[in-house]
Amino acid sequence: MLRIHGVGGYEEVGRNMTCIEIDDEALILDMGLYMDRFVALQEKKIKMNREILLNEDAIPNDNVIKSIKKKIRAIVISHAHLDHVGAVKWMAPNYECPIVTTPYTAEYIKRTARIKNKIIRVNVNSSYKISKKLEIEFINVTHSIPQSTMVRISTPYGDILYGLDYKNDNHPMLGRKTNIKRLRELDNVILLIADSTNADVEGKTFSEAIAREMLKDILFSLEMEENGLFLTTFSSHIARQKTMLKLIKDIGREAVFIGRSLYDYIESAEKLKLIDFSSHAKLIKNARDAEKLLNEMNKKKNEYAFIVTGGMGEKDAILSQIANDELALKISPQDIVIFSSAVIPTPTIQANRKILEQKLHRKKARIFKDVHVSGHGSREDLRDLIKIVSPQHILAAHGDMNKCASLATLANEMGYILGKNVHLMQNGQTLKI
Amino acid sequence: MLRIHGVGGYEEVGRNMTCIEIDDEALILDMGLYMDRFVALQEKKIKMNREILLNEDAIPNDNVIKSIKKKIRAIVISHAHLDHVGAVKWMAPNYECPIVTTPYTAEYIKRTARIKNKIIRVNVNSSYKISKKLEIEFINVTHSIPQSTMVRISTPYGDILYGLDYKNDNHPMLGRKTNIKRLRELDNVILLIADSTNADVEGKTFSEAIAREMLKDILFSLEMEENGLFLTTFSSHIARQKTMLKLIKDIGREAVFIGRSLYDYIESAEKLKLIDFSSHAKLIKNARDAEKLLNEMNKKKNEYAFIVTGGMGEKDAILSQIANDELALKISPQDIVIFSSAVIPTPTIQANRKILEQKLHRKKARIFKDVHVSGHGSREDLRDLIKIVSPQHILAAHGDMNKCASLATLANEMGYILGKNVHLMQNGQTLKI
Amino acid sequence: MLRIHGVGGYEEVGRNMTCIEIDDEALILDMGLYMDRFVALQEKKIKMNREILLNEDAIPNDNVIKSIKKKIRAIVISHAHLDHVGAVKWMAPNYECPIVTTPYTAEYIKRTARIKNKIIRVNVNSSYKISKKLEIEFINVTHSIPQSTMVRISTPYGDILYGLDYKNDNHPMLGRKTNIKRLRELDNVILLIADSTNADVEGKTFSEAIAREMLKDILFSLEMEENGLFLTTFSSHIARQKTMLKLIKDIGREAVFIGRSLYDYIESAEKLKLIDFSSHAKLIKNARDAEKLLNEMNKKKNEYAFIVTGGMGEKDAILSQIANDELALKISPQDIVIFSSAVIPTPTIQANRKILEQKLHRKKARIFKDVHVSGHGSREDLRDLIKIVSPQHILAAHGDMNKCASLATLANEMGYILGKNVHLMQNGQTLKI
Amino acid sequence: MLRIHGVGGYEEVGRNMTCIEIDDEALILDMGLYMDRFVALQEKKIKMNREILLNEDAIPNDNVIKSIKKKIRAIVISHAHLDHVGAVKWMAPNYECPIVTTPYTAEYIKRTARIKNKIIRVNVNSSYKISKKLEIEFINVTHSIPQSTMVRISTPYGDILYGLDYKNDNHPMLGRKTNIKRLRELDNVILLIADSTNADVEGKTFSEAIAREMLKDILFSLEMEENGLFLTTFSSHIARQKTMLKLIKDIGREAVFIGRSLYDYIESAEKLKLIDFSSHAKLIKNARDAEKLLNEMNKKKNEYAFIVTGGMGEKDAILSQIANDELALKISPQDIVIFSSAVIPTPTIQANRKILEQKLHRKKARIFKDVHVSGHGSREDLRDLIKIVSPQHILAAHGDMNKCASLATLANEMGYILGKNVHLMQNGQTLKI
Repeated sequence: MLRIHGVGGYEEVGRNMTCIEIDDEALILDMGLYMDRFVALQEKKIKMNREILLNEDAIPNDNVIKSIKKKIRAIVISHAHLDHVGAVKWMAPNYECPIVTTPYTAEYIKRTARIKNKIIRVNVNSSYKISKKLEIEFINVTHSIPQSTMVRISTPYGDILYGLDYKNDNHPMLGRKTNIKRLRELDNVILLIADSTNADVEGKTFSEAIAREMLKDILFSLEMEENGLFLTTFSSHIARQKTMLKLIKDIGREAVFIGRSLYDYIESAEKLKLIDFSSHAKLIKNARDAEKLLNEMNKKKNEYAFIVTGGMGEKDAILSQIANDELALKISPQDIVIFSSAVIPTPTIQANRKILEQKLHRKKARIFKDVHVSGHGSREDLRDLIKIVSPQHILAAHGDMNKCASLATLANEMGYILGKNVHLMQNGQTLKI
Repeated sequence: MLRIHGVGGYEEVGRNMTCIEIDDEALILDMGLYMDRFVALQEKKIKMNREILLNEDAIPNDNVIKSIKKKIRAIVISHAHLDHVGAVKWMAPNYECPIVTTPYTAEYIKRTARIKNKIIRVNVNSSYKISKKLEIEFINVTHSIPQSTMVRISTPYGDILYGLDYKNDNHPMLGRKTNIKRLRELDNVILLIADSTNADVEGKTFSEAIAREMLKDILFSLEMEENGLFLTTFSSHIARQKTMLKLIKDIGREAVFIGRSLYDYIESAEKLKLIDFSSHAKLIKNARDAEKLLNEMNKKKNEYAFIVTGGMGEKDAILSQIANDELALKISPQDIVIFSSAVIPTPTIQANRKILEQKLHRKKARIFKDVHVSGHGSREDLRDLIKIVSPQHILAAHGDMNKCASLATLANEMGYILGKNVHLMQNGQTLKI
Repeated sequence: MLRIHGVGGYEEVGRNMTCIEIDDEALILDMGLYMDRFVALQEKKIKMNREILLNEDAIPNDNVIKSIKKKIRAIVISHAHLDHVGAVKWMAPNYECPIVTTPYTAEYIKRTARIKNKIIRVNVNSSYKISKKLEIEFINVTHSIPQSTMVRISTPYGDILYGLDYKNDNHPMLGRKTNIKRLRELDNVILLIADSTNADVEGKTFSEAIAREMLKDILFSLEMEENGLFLTTFSSHIARQKTMLKLIKDIGREAVFIGRSLYDYIESAEKLKLIDFSSHAKLIKNARDAEKLLNEMNKKKNEYAFIVTGGMGEKDAILSQIANDELALKISPQDIVIFSSAVIPTPTIQANRKILEQKLHRKKARIFKDVHVSGHGSREDLRDLIKIVSPQHILAAHGDMNKCASLATLANEMGYILGKNVHLMQNGQTLKI
Repeated sequence: MLRIHGVGGYEEVGRNMTCIEIDDEALILDMGLYMDRFVALQEKKIKMNREILLNEDAIPNDNVIKSIKKKIRAIVISHAHLDHVGAVKWMAPNYECPIVTTPYTAEYIKRTARIKNKIIRVNVNSSYKISKKLEIEFINVTHSIPQSTMVRISTPYGDILYGLDYKNDNHPMLGRKTNIKRLRELDNVILLIADSTNADVEGKTFSEAIAREMLKDILFSLEMEENGLFLTTFSSHIARQKTMLKLIKDIGREAVFIGRSLYDYIESAEKLKLIDFSSHAKLIKNARDAEKLLNEMNKKKNEYAFIVTGGMGEKDAILSQIANDELALKISPQDIVIFSSAVIPTPTIQANRKILEQKLHRKKARIFKDVHVSGHGSREDLRDLIKIVSPQHILAAHGDMNKCASLATLANEMGYILGKNVHLMQNGQTLKI
């Protein structure tokens, strides 16, 4: 008996959580936040707890698996993005089982969540036996954070492949390529849980190399002798930051990272020796404690390039503080601001970002937006994944019903039939195979 | 045993056809064309037949019901739009059963299709016994063509309500309002087959009265003493044409209808005494045969208003012929062209329309677009329908998977659960209840 | 010698202010706020003054007319919208001359600005002699606030027609129609200062009657027995509020107006006997002072309809307070929220509104947006105005350079030539004729 | 006395033609087609001549310079795109003066136009003395066709820089970079005629290297062992084709170029030894003459990659013929079609393209769109150009009034003032400096 419980992420892009029940055992895949709700709550400055988050739909509602709680042997986390790991802090204490994840994600959990669950580190492209019958394997994929994985769950009924948040990037700037070789070897995939985020985007999601070329093109061709240079990207996007660091050096400036969340992700990565930014750049955790330094830097902005938090327009992040003239570091006319990220398409975040851009325009900054490639495969990447894995069944996840319907339409074009072997689900529902 | 076979219309807005199987009997609901494909074929000037149309997906593929062909007792047509009735001509001869429909639709079928199936006329808001066990009822609804209906199919298991192509219009310009009273009486609806066309449109679809007010506003306020006046709408939209006729009279001009498809729909309606346009306007079936008359009219354009075919940019329709200078009737600078229709959002039609507009701009015409209200209810209208009918199950129809997913999302908000009592389907699939 | 100084409103939709210099005399037309900037400042809770507002571009920069300050004989205000009158409070004290305007606008100024300038009230469709040589005439136009006018300035060189913020509405719900008869009589217009706001919108701006029909359609057709009903529109849009009041009565509920700015505009209009809302509805100026009353009303929401401030998502307005659960009056699932307004397309306002909608969606409200017609004429209305007035010159105003370019393109289509007799200008520039 | 006559290209993106009058001499810059009109005419299959083209606004109307015809000393062509050179064929015979251009453009003119005007070849980055007083210099720029140039016109009053159709690409795939060094040397530019095409696009136009990386990413990562591979780009975009050729080799297939216009541009470039495609690829001029060959190739599509004409959906081009099943070469399900171009945003072309895509979707091709970078600089590139050249005056060209207004807004942000030193113009107007 095989049951897939869709706890979260089947009605929105966010708060991912799926539970696989195999006879008398079960495991949980991911425990994520719904960022838009979470950001909205943060702005209210309310002290958060599990009940509030649940009530506001900021974390998954695990009621659907209440009755099988005792069966659960492990919480498996695929990678360290907040929509996959962010709810661990609030929800894991309710489960008496270990958390199994890759070293980088483990490090991130340790830094940010005080929980008692045992954390088991498993390397990418390695397997781990959870119980006599259950084995999982972390298959390395390219995405936009270190040590991202698909999770293969080996069951007596065949393999389940939990394949969210991946792209097929032949030129990642950090870490290894997607382990296509291993994916090709899988010959008994009964179910692929597939990423619908970009299923409605035609074509292919381009390689991280394209983002590097775009950044390079801007930095090397612009007339900017005396002007300030500000860059922003997702704090967890270490690969992008590595590219920035390299290019900033190449144009003869010094990189300065500013902001707490940047600091956290970078420190985690350095601890695992994935990168070494501190030897080549300044890292400022707390801008308010570094007023004097920032003041000095502000006088010779042409010597530096500032990589700052706040690309989503978050009100407390560095870029907003600068735009609001709250720091010693300022934006002057003709200064360059590069958004090396997309805008997460949810209302609160879009609104925040729009207001930030408006402020930068008022300061006559030169703005470069969408200098970015997505971390999620598009329609044609998904088609290839399905080709390679040849799953018996497909479950559309990581999106609202419309995004999931787009994935189902693609699967249908490839011969799958809705309800028979390609499935749509809602939060709280269960699929039996 | 109750089975719903989705023959067509579950993957596109077009070629609607559903088959209801009840134990040892069955009936077909609608047999429509997929207009975009059909138009594309027409433009190729290929002589059409069933095989070509099937091969090009211009008509539904009825393979799925091949095995139950003998059970089929009737083909029931809900209204006379081509995406519901247009395939009758090609497909009905394959079925040895009568066509059951309202008088106006019957008239239209008779005029356009030479078929041997018996045609049974049933008035709106009346019932008809198809067999001992099966009864259908045509419940009057407002839409954008005369005698539109929802079809209630009474079965031993409860009522099925086939509710496509409807809006809840309190001020229809022709015919009666949606029979809400009757809908409220239904207390045993096991299945509602619901219209997903505008399920993704927030708010309410406005009444035909709004279209009248918009037209009135333009016609009465514009500076247009000497200028030509051209209007276009869907040829089947008799209510809109009635409004135009009235308003044209009010501004002291004479209405002239030009074009074969307009002529056909009007003549059908006149035969049934639904309207009497001919006493108040000129009707020109074939523009090429009326060169002399059009030439005369062209000299005193300020006395006339021309209601012509071609609002979708169809290449052989009157408005395109005028724009191409192929007729004696011309468009001069400052002449007014009113598109009292939306553009059907399919590629061939959008492209044709765009080219037409470009030509009119070149002639310096004053263009008014989207002077129109839709004939399909929006999200809030659909919510009301579900409230009123309280069906046990809902099947999303009349749209691709994304549109149907929008309807399912609405139903979900109202307490229905995907796969349990709200259902998505693809062409060729079957739902058992 | 005739000079037109474009003080504000020639680079944005907002802070309108134009100065006409005729030989040794001059007059100012309008003194408005740039709302987006003003709202942004308000949210910062900074105490405002002239310098701050100027520095943030929230009011016009009148440096360009500093040297002719002594020539200025009057400040003429065309109507009481904030982008035309809102800067009077801050700027008029700098000018030693009277303010000349219509009674309603005068009333509004008196209520909101403590200034020493004399206020001269002139009725619509009346003239006023400012000096021996200068006469102005307020020509009544339809717009979206009572007593809107075009201003004819009679000069020795011919008439100048200041024609911003007007539509040609044959069915205004309040006040008289645009005085087309008078406009036709003008036979010596040397310059038309024209409204570019909607110059890029094809077709015609529909009558206020359409907005009424849309509201009526929603209110009379919706299933809403027990549900709450909330409406919002611009606080200054008395005509729309009048329509709402009437319709709410017709469906058997009682109207309750809530919010300070609504209260201010309504009281001004009542004082001039333009309307009498208080006899037919409850008016609540300050919601926080009326907690008990609101609590009572909240228990029987089906007896009331609430017309509230906050349609632009303003953070301190009533609708936001309700959405934030800060008042005793609540929104429950299935309650109806009607936005009878467009969203002003500027960043801060769009962002605020988006966040508000998101909150309402979370509460499962039924949302109806854009139940609205604009107060600004579109391309074809502008064409008619130019036809009727036949000005020798046209100056594009009330928009950024792109909007003004659209007006120039229209004029060009009608035979005017850029730089010769149709003119583009920037804030701070001067046109000599 | 210096006069700039805007003959064409000041009201549309197309039919560029400017005339510079310097005292008793004059010269013409470019003679281009308005492609949308030209394509529309072609589709009508009318035999074209100068009058028809003029009447349909497909070529510039040179009436404005009729009176100074005798002063004209040369027709200078900046590069070989049809909107700059396409009208030479029809208009040059009316002028008794030589055509001065770069070798590649000269070659193209010779191949496509039978005219008697003498053609003078001047290398890029070289000067040419047209008369005693007039000298021109072709300054090499990167664009999307070989030997693109800005033209410096040296006059007694200072330099005029005709700077349309350029981007600042540090990694062109063919030819040299924009000669920024030379541009920096210019210290007496009284007028820059600037490219408004992308003035409304924020940020920077990326390098051709980005297009290469995108193509590479698709070709190297896709699962396409057995599938056909079709690519299309602008026929004149030799640099892009060179990239394709290289990449196709790298993936182990053979490139096949098909289509007359591709053939023409390639042959011109080969004659000048700019490229050598024929040694590495098959070139098929006329597909209908190569049925047998195409039939063979169609049997082993996995060995080839087909670079074909028709990216704009042109009805007679190769890709349309394939989509219509008119050739032996076919598109099968899963075949790959890469559009390495943008869609020119004019109605006829957009419509054609949409119809083509629809046909490809029907064949279940895998479609990749916009695998492209523009050849026109964006807002920030234009800002840099203005910084580098520091012109006294700027004239916005290569766009309709809205696009030109966007350039003027940028210039204004940089301190230029509309009407004083940044200028807007319409076709047929003259600017005096």
